[in-house]
Amino acid sequence: MLTRNQIKLLRALGSRKHRQKYHKFIAEGEKVVLEAIREWPDRIELVVLSPEVSDDLLPRIPSTIPCFQVPAKTMEMISGMETPPGVICLIDTPPEIAEELADQDWLLFLDGIRDPGNLGTIIRTADWFGLGAIVLGPGCADWTNPKVVQASMGSVFRVRCAEMSLGELIEAFPERVVLVSDMDGTDISTIHFPEQGVLVMGSESQGVSAESLEKANQRITINKNPRSRAESLNVATAAGILLSRLGARKT
Amino acid sequence: MLTRNQIKLLRALGSRKHRQKYHKFIAEGEKVVLEAIREWPDRIELVVLSPEVSDDLLPRIPSTIPCFQVPAKTMEMISGMETPPGVICLIDTPPEIAEELADQDWLLFLDGIRDPGNLGTIIRTADWFGLGAIVLGPGCADWTNPKVVQASMGSVFRVRCAEMSLGELIEAFPERVVLVSDMDGTDISTIHFPEQGVLVMGSESQGVSAESLEKANQRITINKNPRSRAESLNVATAAGILLSRLGARKT
Repeated sequence: MLTRNQIKLLRALGSRKHRQKYHKFIAEGEKVVLEAIREWPDRIELVVLSPEVSDDLLPRIPSTIPCFQVPAKTMEMISGMETPPGVICLIDTPPEIAEELADQDWLLFLDGIRDPGNLGTIIRTADWFGLGAIVLGPGCADWTNPKVVQASMGSVFRVRCAEMSLGELIEAFPERVVLVSDMDGTDISTIHFPEQGVLVMGSESQGVSAESLEKANQRITINKNPRSRAESLNVATAAGILLSRLGARKT
Repeated sequence: MLTRNQIKLLRALGSRKHRQKYHKFIAEGEKVVLEAIREWPDRIELVVLSPEVSDDLLPRIPSTIPCFQVPAKTMEMISGMETPPGVICLIDTPPEIAEELADQDWLLFLDGIRDPGNLGTIIRTADWFGLGAIVLGPGCADWTNPKVVQASMGSVFRVRCAEMSLGELIEAFPERVVLVSDMDGTDISTIHFPEQGVLVMGSESQGVSAESLEKANQRITINKNPRSRAESLNVATAAGILLSRLGARKT
């Protein structure tokens, strides 16, 4: 049986402070939990299931991972989702990455992406286009936030997130060209992307920070149709369009 | 003062049934309400404001539109958002479109896009790339759903949504090529897009319907990196990538 203290811990992991303190986070929902088990089997500390999904899921969970059936009410208490999922797992957060970054031809640096849904969607897109790691700058949501994990559809277990400032990143990779996505740059369809580089994207409302703009070698823009009166694109959509251009560079 | 019946009506418009019955819907939040007023000034029946935003907003609302200040509690009752916005407006739904479709070089047909956030984001992207109208097939969220309006950031007031089946659309535009986004088609970076056509997109989980696949002249795919173990892209991200390719066709 799940102890009171375990329930208390699982609930506490809804907040960033506690995720950092305990170095643990949770993943919710069948699809994401199964991805966590597949990618990081040794980091899953326990799985909590509601009775309705147990028959289906238990056989798919390695017997080395402790599983606990709990009533719907406990599930509601633990989950941060509007509709509580049938399954939640507790994950031991892996150590911060460093070496993975050097393997990436293109480093995506996110500047102030606060919305967890957008961050998770960007991580999912990065996964699709084969990025193994990205960099979260100051002001980004925390990649272990349950809503980020959920929106990533499990891609957070494959695309590792480093946390540092753009200055630190550039110091580590001084030879790389820095492209910054901005409203007022060169149209991406006219750009020949080099083999390697850093791509900086900011939030929809604020754009990239002045610090990022200063460090840019080139500003690039997803051109708007001349007739359009729209003000901006969703940042996850913009990231998808830019990563698709970088991806196509190779094929 | 806002009457009890007006409050009742505003609340009821959270459901599709009532939006269809009364032929009205609501927009929430400063940005979206101001877009509604700018684009459709004659369709705004009234504006409801909380006291904190009144000083800032009242001078920006035409005097022909009735404005009502209400306490935070009433705002909470009316709004479907987790954090109630400071302003909500009541909009008279315009008649269904028909002629706008013929003006579009590319017709985007959405097949079963149930998630209102994704649908709103797609409408916002369509606006950016200059589409004046799109087509919602069966199983799509309702474009007057408050969450769609919100995620569109006001683009629903510029990109008109028609509702019909793919069969009806093709009957109306029999000469157009039909491209269907699918996991198993031709890589988009190798395709030369014609001047006009129909682009069909389905949901992430189900893909496009068998009916849509049958009607396709060509299946197209956003190629995944060969190393990637990701299962799919978010549908709004995929729509952004495809519309960006169609947009670049012209420049």
